[in-house]
Amino acid sequence: MSQKIDFNKFAKRERVNFINSLSGFKSANLIGTINSSGLSNLAIVSSVFHIGADPALIGFIIRPDSVPRHTLINIRDTKKCTINHCGVGMTEAAHRTSARFDANTSEFTKTNLTEEYIDSYIVPFVKESPIKFSASLIEEVVIKHNGTHLLIMKIDKVYLCDRKLIQEDYAIDLEGAGIACISGLNSYHQTELINKYPYAKVDI
Amino acid sequence: MSQKIDFNKFAKRERVNFINSLSGFKSANLIGTINSSGLSNLAIVSSVFHIGADPALIGFIIRPDSVPRHTLINIRDTKKCTINHCGVGMTEAAHRTSARFDANTSEFTKTNLTEEYIDSYIVPFVKESPIKFSASLIEEVVIKHNGTHLLIMKIDKVYLCDRKLIQEDYAIDLEGAGIACISGLNSYHQTELINKYPYAKVDI
Repeated sequence: MSQKIDFNKFAKRERVNFINSLSGFKSANLIGTINSSGLSNLAIVSSVFHIGADPALIGFIIRPDSVPRHTLINIRDTKKCTINHCGVGMTEAAHRTSARFDANTSEFTKTNLTEEYIDSYIVPFVKESPIKFSASLIEEVVIKHNGTHLLIMKIDKVYLCDRKLIQEDYAIDLEGAGIACISGLNSYHQTELINKYPYAKVDI
Repeated sequence: MSQKIDFNKFAKRERVNFINSLSGFKSANLIGTINSSGLSNLAIVSSVFHIGADPALIGFIIRPDSVPRHTLINIRDTKKCTINHCGVGMTEAAHRTSARFDANTSEFTKTNLTEEYIDSYIVPFVKESPIKFSASLIEEVVIKHNGTHLLIMKIDKVYLCDRKLIQEDYAIDLEGAGIACISGLNSYHQTELINKYPYAKVDI
């Protein structure tokens, strides 16, 4: 028998923790950006989600009044970012990027994560990240009900630490790459495959 | 040294699998709806993501030309749905809901998942799901670059199989509830906690 939970009675912080965990497990990505003075920024973001394969699009949510504001400012300026998957050995450093460092501090200097510049792209990648890609802003949607911003980005160039991570069906083996996932605001998890099912058909 | 992967050279199906896995691990939710004739529908959706805690909002992407079209039609009609987390023992049934059943077939009759009606809500929940909630449509955003639909839903009532899943900080223990996550289109994973970190501060 299910138990109804009246989250409207929760205090503010408790409500934030409860609702943030309610959507399920989330992707763990470090978003790299650069400001107009050439200073890099790195922010852990758990809202990156798939929008479409062709054109190759992802989206993520940025709250302008919360920690990764520099990310939003920088992407508006340059239209560019890098998205770097967080490996299971990178979670402590990744989480540290969520501290409110000022605009003159690059999170790269406050963690053991290493700036990596690839193919003359102006925004740094995270060297330690096994799966990473560059992306360009194509649309900013304001969610009018709470003032958050949905950034829709086109996937440009993809880099893997090892081409063998591409499976027979061309899906990337995230688990084999040791990628973490997130629950709530601050729990990081590794994964264990339950099963990979074939394309579902009505008759089977 | 990272290896660049030119996904633009991939065949269509391979590109779909590759890009679908590129955003990272995804939430595993069964979305329940009901049509104007009272026929239920259930669809596995991996794009549910957190938008905000107050108001409590989640969003998900529906492609009108892909499998869960009935979900979109039904939500437009009734403005209501249920979102039911997929437990690790439910993944085979959950994946089966992605088969292209016709509009007159409820996925509940084609899987071992059980319709559950709670508190006179017109849309069924999934009885076996340990974490579930009802939600109401408040905004539909068309992503103009690929014609997909972002549904923004307000979280109404939340039900847990056990109140003890609420942790000290009020985050729900998704792992303790045995919730699965998804990679790509068809891989289901269980999780193992790496660490839960405190709120990140600049000075620590």
